[in-house]
Amino acid sequence: MPAPHSPQIDTHRLWQSLMDLAAIGATELGGVRRLALTDLDRQGRDRVCDWLREAGCSIRVDAIGNIFAIRPGARDTDPVGVGSHIDTQPSGGKFDGNYGVLAGLEVIRALNDARIATERPVAVAIWTNEEGSRFTPVMMGSGVYAGAFSLEHCLARTDLEGITVADALSRIGYAGTDQAPRFATYFEPHIEQGPILEAEGMTIGAVEGALGQRWFDLELTGQDAHAGPTPLAMRRDALVGAARVITEVRRIAADYPNNARGTVGQLLVSPNSRNVIPGRVRLTIDLRNARAETLAAMVADIETCITRIAADERLSAQLTEVVHFEPCHFDPHWVSRIEGFARARGHTVRRLASGAGHDAVYVAKTCPAAMIFVPCEGGISHNEIENAQPQHLAAGAQVLLDAMIEAAGRAPASN
Amino acid sequence: MPAPHSPQIDTHRLWQSLMDLAAIGATELGGVRRLALTDLDRQGRDRVCDWLREAGCSIRVDAIGNIFAIRPGARDTDPVGVGSHIDTQPSGGKFDGNYGVLAGLEVIRALNDARIATERPVAVAIWTNEEGSRFTPVMMGSGVYAGAFSLEHCLARTDLEGITVADALSRIGYAGTDQAPRFATYFEPHIEQGPILEAEGMTIGAVEGALGQRWFDLELTGQDAHAGPTPLAMRRDALVGAARVITEVRRIAADYPNNARGTVGQLLVSPNSRNVIPGRVRLTIDLRNARAETLAAMVADIETCITRIAADERLSAQLTEVVHFEPCHFDPHWVSRIEGFARARGHTVRRLASGAGHDAVYVAKTCPAAMIFVPCEGGISHNEIENAQPQHLAAGAQVLLDAMIEAAGRAPASN
Repeated sequence: MPAPHSPQIDTHRLWQSLMDLAAIGATELGGVRRLALTDLDRQGRDRVCDWLREAGCSIRVDAIGNIFAIRPGARDTDPVGVGSHIDTQPSGGKFDGNYGVLAGLEVIRALNDARIATERPVAVAIWTNEEGSRFTPVMMGSGVYAGAFSLEHCLARTDLEGITVADALSRIGYAGTDQAPRFATYFEPHIEQGPILEAEGMTIGAVEGALGQRWFDLELTGQDAHAGPTPLAMRRDALVGAARVITEVRRIAADYPNNARGTVGQLLVSPNSRNVIPGRVRLTIDLRNARAETLAAMVADIETCITRIAADERLSAQLTEVVHFEPCHFDPHWVSRIEGFARARGHTVRRLASGAGHDAVYVAKTCPAAMIFVPCEGGISHNEIENAQPQHLAAGAQVLLDAMIEAAGRAPASN
Repeated sequence: MPAPHSPQIDTHRLWQSLMDLAAIGATELGGVRRLALTDLDRQGRDRVCDWLREAGCSIRVDAIGNIFAIRPGARDTDPVGVGSHIDTQPSGGKFDGNYGVLAGLEVIRALNDARIATERPVAVAIWTNEEGSRFTPVMMGSGVYAGAFSLEHCLARTDLEGITVADALSRIGYAGTDQAPRFATYFEPHIEQGPILEAEGMTIGAVEGALGQRWFDLELTGQDAHAGPTPLAMRRDALVGAARVITEVRRIAADYPNNARGTVGQLLVSPNSRNVIPGRVRLTIDLRNARAETLAAMVADIETCITRIAADERLSAQLTEVVHFEPCHFDPHWVSRIEGFARARGHTVRRLASGAGHDAVYVAKTCPAAMIFVPCEGGISHNEIENAQPQHLAAGAQVLLDAMIEAAGRAPASN
């Protein structure tokens, strides 16, 4: 029985809600396949909404299908929000997104158990189509909420079968008409999706921001030629050029400060025949950094390298930018408070940057926002073997609960 | 009217025979698609056999479908041979292979025109399935002839539709029962399929031999991970390892003597997603050299590099050898005589190594053999835009004619 003034997360109940939701779209390998706005997504939404209603929340659904479950406060003000998403990758796991939503549900339940009233309402948000697997762009619901995309643009987007977002929302009964609330403060707990916390034996990550991202397509064109008869000096080998670009991307990731990342994830060789010198290679470059000016310097560096490599190898090079996200800086006050709550609860904590995008990055454009990371096994995510420890998930939810009570204010009517 | 003692190649007639044969299987882009043992191959064989019969040759067909057209000599001895193939790549050109066969036809016609009899018979060989596009192994007919493969093994090989070589030979009427002749000497004229002669403004290549070839498959395995959250130190990026291997293969090709070649032609990335660190890369390595011991040193070098790179990048590496051809050395006397005949006819000539395999490489196991290269446009072959100059083709055929007369001996009955 938790003390009335120190409401407690129920580790088992949080875990059970994660397992119950993971049963909807469960895969044989222990993962979840519940793509945005499918029948399985509807089942998941219905289940979580039922739980939230049972916990005393009213449900609102906006025009892009974002769900807001609101526990009333003593005052009718902007709520303090928590949220994430429950759509998954095609071969996704049980925790990515789902944890943020169900940690929010667990906060509501814990407040109820402790009979705590808050000054501000408390809201749980379920953002539509964060993963972007079925419909692009990714982070669609939070992006529309924050004004990054227009509602009309997103409703008209289609999946591979030509079904629009608008149709898919209607089919599953989540084409809402409610006004989305504006948040006073917003929190998003999430598994790290990276290896740092686990490797360092830390329980809580106080996320300072999300790395800026600049994504490029690069096409290098030389000349197909027979591997045997063509001497080195007469080759225009696009794959040799690509290898040098990959090596430079890695050097850039190593050389620059502020959480620099550099990755070539995709590469296609043409004609891709073992005894033909490759005349064309297409590859992707993904550069990330916590600071916009450092990210710009990384981009300038790889541009210079590509120009030099193309000249050396007698290739033509076509570099096209396809994604540009500015770095996101979360609210310094709440980053610091998350550290404080973690320490007060006896948990190890470190600051880190989110390498990936999250709904909180868009919501942070509308209000003070922060994220709480917990470790995931091997840093693995977007994979059916994604895993996390119940005690870590509970620790993150506890920090969330403490932060939300502080942000919402405890009302005199509290137990 | 050529002088009786200096028989002449007819440039136009040789060119016309090439164009007439290229009409069988002609593609819209000006190339030829005439795969081994197809109906088009039958039409091509029938056409060339008709021309050879009209020129006074008798035709033999052996059990693997090799064709031998024999112009009798004054003595019933082993013939002096010339040959190549008339099957093409799926997107092949007009000259690869066809030139060697039709230069042989032109030699017979020129001997006839000049009323020259030879001591030894003169034979034109058309080897079955040199390209290996429909049935593997490549150079099948000459390989069976030289004992590199058994007849039974090759007859049982199947194409993608399950048709055996034996069935395909029967269908087109070229499952022969004749004994193949043994050659006293064998010549093969061929377009260079490389850029050296054209780049140096040379007309004739006196081919000293064919590079030895060692082909490998390499699989590098690391760990898929998210491109954003995973710092450099925690990555096991198989594509970064592959890039280093590609760079080392190029260094090896640059560093070693004796016509070293090194090529990575094929590379497949898994999962090949732009924001996922590649956990697995499969690539091919093709190393060539004119000397077996240098080739072995190149192989040892790349093996050492792969071991070091795998350790550095925390990858596992699996290297598998898939092809091993020893270097071929053509007959030094005839290489020198080809140079001599070229100079005597006023042509520029240089020695070079064949980077690719040819039927002559197998035939050289059975008798003294040599090849004559002529330039091809841009060094491009195995392509519909493959092209060569009529005067270069005629020059190569003239050197062939001069060499064959010397090898076969001029009989007293000559004009």
